[in-house]
Amino acid sequence: MSEKRTELSRLGEFGLIDRIQQQFSLQNETSLKGIGDDAAVISSGEESIVVSTDMLLEGVHFDLSYMPLQHLGYKAVAVNVSDIAAMNAKPEQIVISLGISNRFSLEAVDALYEGIRAACDSYKVDLVGGDTSSSVSGLIISITAIGRVAKDKVVERNGAKANDIICVTGDLGAAYVGLQVLEREKQVFLTNPEMQPDLEKYEYLVGRQLKPEARMDIVHDLAERNCVPTSMIDISDGLASELLHLSKNSKLGVKIFEDKVPIDHDTFETAIEFKIDPITCVLNGGEDYELLFTITPTDYEKLKNHPDIHFIGHMHENANQNVMITKQQTLVPITAQGWNHFKVE
Amino acid sequence: MSEKRTELSRLGEFGLIDRIQQQFSLQNETSLKGIGDDAAVISSGEESIVVSTDMLLEGVHFDLSYMPLQHLGYKAVAVNVSDIAAMNAKPEQIVISLGISNRFSLEAVDALYEGIRAACDSYKVDLVGGDTSSSVSGLIISITAIGRVAKDKVVERNGAKANDIICVTGDLGAAYVGLQVLEREKQVFLTNPEMQPDLEKYEYLVGRQLKPEARMDIVHDLAERNCVPTSMIDISDGLASELLHLSKNSKLGVKIFEDKVPIDHDTFETAIEFKIDPITCVLNGGEDYELLFTITPTDYEKLKNHPDIHFIGHMHENANQNVMITKQQTLVPITAQGWNHFKVE
Repeated sequence: MSEKRTELSRLGEFGLIDRIQQQFSLQNETSLKGIGDDAAVISSGEESIVVSTDMLLEGVHFDLSYMPLQHLGYKAVAVNVSDIAAMNAKPEQIVISLGISNRFSLEAVDALYEGIRAACDSYKVDLVGGDTSSSVSGLIISITAIGRVAKDKVVERNGAKANDIICVTGDLGAAYVGLQVLEREKQVFLTNPEMQPDLEKYEYLVGRQLKPEARMDIVHDLAERNCVPTSMIDISDGLASELLHLSKNSKLGVKIFEDKVPIDHDTFETAIEFKIDPITCVLNGGEDYELLFTITPTDYEKLKNHPDIHFIGHMHENANQNVMITKQQTLVPITAQGWNHFKVE
Repeated sequence: MSEKRTELSRLGEFGLIDRIQQQFSLQNETSLKGIGDDAAVISSGEESIVVSTDMLLEGVHFDLSYMPLQHLGYKAVAVNVSDIAAMNAKPEQIVISLGISNRFSLEAVDALYEGIRAACDSYKVDLVGGDTSSSVSGLIISITAIGRVAKDKVVERNGAKANDIICVTGDLGAAYVGLQVLEREKQVFLTNPEMQPDLEKYEYLVGRQLKPEARMDIVHDLAERNCVPTSMIDISDGLASELLHLSKNSKLGVKIFEDKVPIDHDTFETAIEFKIDPITCVLNGGEDYELLFTITPTDYEKLKNHPDIHFIGHMHENANQNVMITKQQTLVPITAQGWNHFKVE
């Protein structure tokens, strides 16, 4: 065949998103912000409605051999709520499309919805609709979350200014290391099914992978302290990738300090056990679902005593210089491996 | 294993939706209407925002051997817009989640988005966000559509009163017959790849299957004539199934007349060619994406001259008597086969 064929892997996920974004323009005045942030922004009187969507596919985003269905249901909601949190908004509704094969029983679907319900309770969101159909292969969960925020409190990716302080919440890299643990135990089990996995030692790491929480608590804390970040994004693809999103959207450079980046003790030790540099897990891992945001220097006082917010660096004028100062005081460029889903293995 | 296993096919799609609906209650006051209509309804000041979601799976909802990707993109948007139309609302935004395998090239994805863009232009909706990831098997398209309507103009499934007139738009059964034609041509092609399909004769039917249109024109016409239906639903699963939804939600019976049901000449002739009763294609086929609605008898004058609205029967007090009067003046009960996606073949 002489038809031209370009592999998707040549563009990667972000290249494809850019391409789609260029092909579509906005025509309704209620469409305040389209493709290119954690969520779309739609005008609703004095408020903005933010909308985000995420699809989880069996065999790509989760492996049911170690992911219990309750946890999967919870996680599917949490990752969407995390996108709403990243807009500084409060999630209120979700709709769920589900593709399920005959392999799944009613009991399995009940378990999935049990997790979804637990997340709805925890984040105070309502399941208001959906679509259910059979799938010829695995399980597919597509969720759209809808949130709300006062018009002047929406935080996008592009508002950072030079000298703004870069903040992250919680600790990073744990979910990635947890995934390595689960994958190793799966291989052990496949080799010797009599062997019981000993996950107790890795409880925190495995929990971060299987049951991540969206940081709605941080959104509330920021509001309470009267602090509106200048830009924000949730950390789903690894810190490096998200920092570069802020850099690109704000047209500024980022500079962070390795010794300021929060890494849990278990994450650190287990990364070493796997012979991976812990900072690599943070930069290029993923699925932390923590928040990365920038604040004006004058807001530092409001947050400096918060036990779970860490100040890891600052924005600067040179958009082409995105760097980390290592513990050895060397300067390394920040590059995103991110996830290239389309990579031909 | 002694664990209990109940097959999903025992409940079917609607049984599963009922089950989920019972397990979830609404906690946010902005959630005006949850599961159980064409779209969810969310409060937004003087307006209501309606939200609907639909997932299309390769091998279940479409077959790429006869569905061109442009058409698929167009259809994926149209079926979602149709749900918004069924709420009497105007669609304004969509978000799209896409799962694509390495089998698809960039050119294929471009073709898909070309169709999506054509539909966005046609229905004046903005693509404002999405999620793209690789799939291990086929193509998956999940779309969520967001529409808007004045609070007092929202039309749900439950507002019909006894003696309200039952109306349908366009003609019915064509998409189902079109699918039979395409399936037959596919089999012919598989047997003898040299054989060129002759689809010209079936152009209308095949077009109804491959390129359905949402009836936004009817929503506009109703508004222009100052007519707000008392209940409305779009016809995606066959007329019988949708009539029973109106009956159940309005707690009334439906009575329709076979000779009033609009069937196109090509649909009729080709159904006979396939040895299927044309009215069966209408009642139990699907994918018409026409509107089924009820109006108060006093509104009949406003619509009686509309060339594309047909009056097929009326609502009555006995919720357990859902019937069709055949051309032979016999009375047959309306039962829904609908689609049981979970049926074990």
